[in-house]
Amino acid sequence: MGYYQEHPKFYISTDCIIFGYINGKLHVLIRPRDMEPGKGELSLMGGFVDDDESVDNAAKRVVKELTGLENFYIEQVGAFGNVDRDPGERVVSICYYVLIKALEYDDDLKNKFNAQWIEIDKIPKLYGDHNLMIEKAHKILQEKLSWNPIAFYLIPEKFTLTQLQVLYETIYGETLDKRNFRKKLTEENHIVTTGEIDKTTSKRGATLFRFDFDGYKNDKIFKL
Amino acid sequence: MGYYQEHPKFYISTDCIIFGYINGKLHVLIRPRDMEPGKGELSLMGGFVDDDESVDNAAKRVVKELTGLENFYIEQVGAFGNVDRDPGERVVSICYYVLIKALEYDDDLKNKFNAQWIEIDKIPKLYGDHNLMIEKAHKILQEKLSWNPIAFYLIPEKFTLTQLQVLYETIYGETLDKRNFRKKLTEENHIVTTGEIDKTTSKRGATLFRFDFDGYKNDKIFKL
Repeated sequence: MGYYQEHPKFYISTDCIIFGYINGKLHVLIRPRDMEPGKGELSLMGGFVDDDESVDNAAKRVVKELTGLENFYIEQVGAFGNVDRDPGERVVSICYYVLIKALEYDDDLKNKFNAQWIEIDKIPKLYGDHNLMIEKAHKILQEKLSWNPIAFYLIPEKFTLTQLQVLYETIYGETLDKRNFRKKLTEENHIVTTGEIDKTTSKRGATLFRFDFDGYKNDKIFKL
Repeated sequence: MGYYQEHPKFYISTDCIIFGYINGKLHVLIRPRDMEPGKGELSLMGGFVDDDESVDNAAKRVVKELTGLENFYIEQVGAFGNVDRDPGERVVSICYYVLIKALEYDDDLKNKFNAQWIEIDKIPKLYGDHNLMIEKAHKILQEKLSWNPIAFYLIPEKFTLTQLQVLYETIYGETLDKRNFRKKLTEENHIVTTGEIDKTTSKRGATLFRFDFDGYKNDKIFKL
């Protein structure tokens, strides 16, 4: 095989922005780089693409290896391809965002890889262009939130409407009008009651709801 | 320099889905491949990334070379990285969509590259995974149309409200309720009258509007 030989080749990496929702705030999983250059510098979870795997599968492999999770929501942010973006060599990175339920994330693996959750507003200067990647992924989350039910990958299966509003507020980075949000909630058919009451937050308690993923898969209609 | 040498390298190409709006229909610019394998097969406009250019700039270069245009809207669709996506060699493609005003597109260049506009609903089997790329780009257009003023890159500067509705309908692939669309139009502050009347389509004529890009840049608010 000898097509395209007049053209250069490049290293390709995948970098993953793993979002988790902890104590009412959106967090990103960060860890020190384990290779030179920049060994020890804080960075996103990432790795190189191998010959025998698709770029998407490389990203999934990286997330599985570094979090131990098998089930997570993953979607491409896009390619970052500036000539000098990596201080080591020319590397084109395909960037993904990943949504996980932070409570399901294995503490042993977190410790093994020296990973830490950092609040999205408090992320320090990271390796290369990783801060830009987080910025772009955060913007995608904000843009999708009103018409795609991605938020439900971040919270437990059962939630109160107040909990859902706080989640939306932390992703948007702004307070939402409660009456307006409740109105939209009642118009959204796939947020359904579980019939259970959460009594941990108030004496009267609050109804626990869940997102009806099966129903959503049928009509693909969501608006919040 | 010798970092990352244990990892494989890959060819990287950019493929561009150039959308144009002609005779009330959304079209894509297609041409025969000029290299083996698959020489002569219909394909998107594309090219390989060089050592000294960013991936984004490689895509812009390709569009300029193949259309002669200097000004166009370009945005990344994402990376296509399946192992066997290109019949020749392993190539990871970063895919972009481009919006141009079809009337400004140089006929000489179109002929030079044997390019042709094909209606989005009538696109034949293209080289490799190019049909999938068009599908994904089309979906992004549909998703963005209601909150991002991308439609105005496809039509002349001055347009009637009926022309705008027909454009929205062809991108969505469905008829829109006229009263509802007009209501949204009156609520959208950046679609402003030019004071001129278009008399080519009816005796009474229809007011010509324009999109106020400067105003939009200030508040970034758009809803239609």
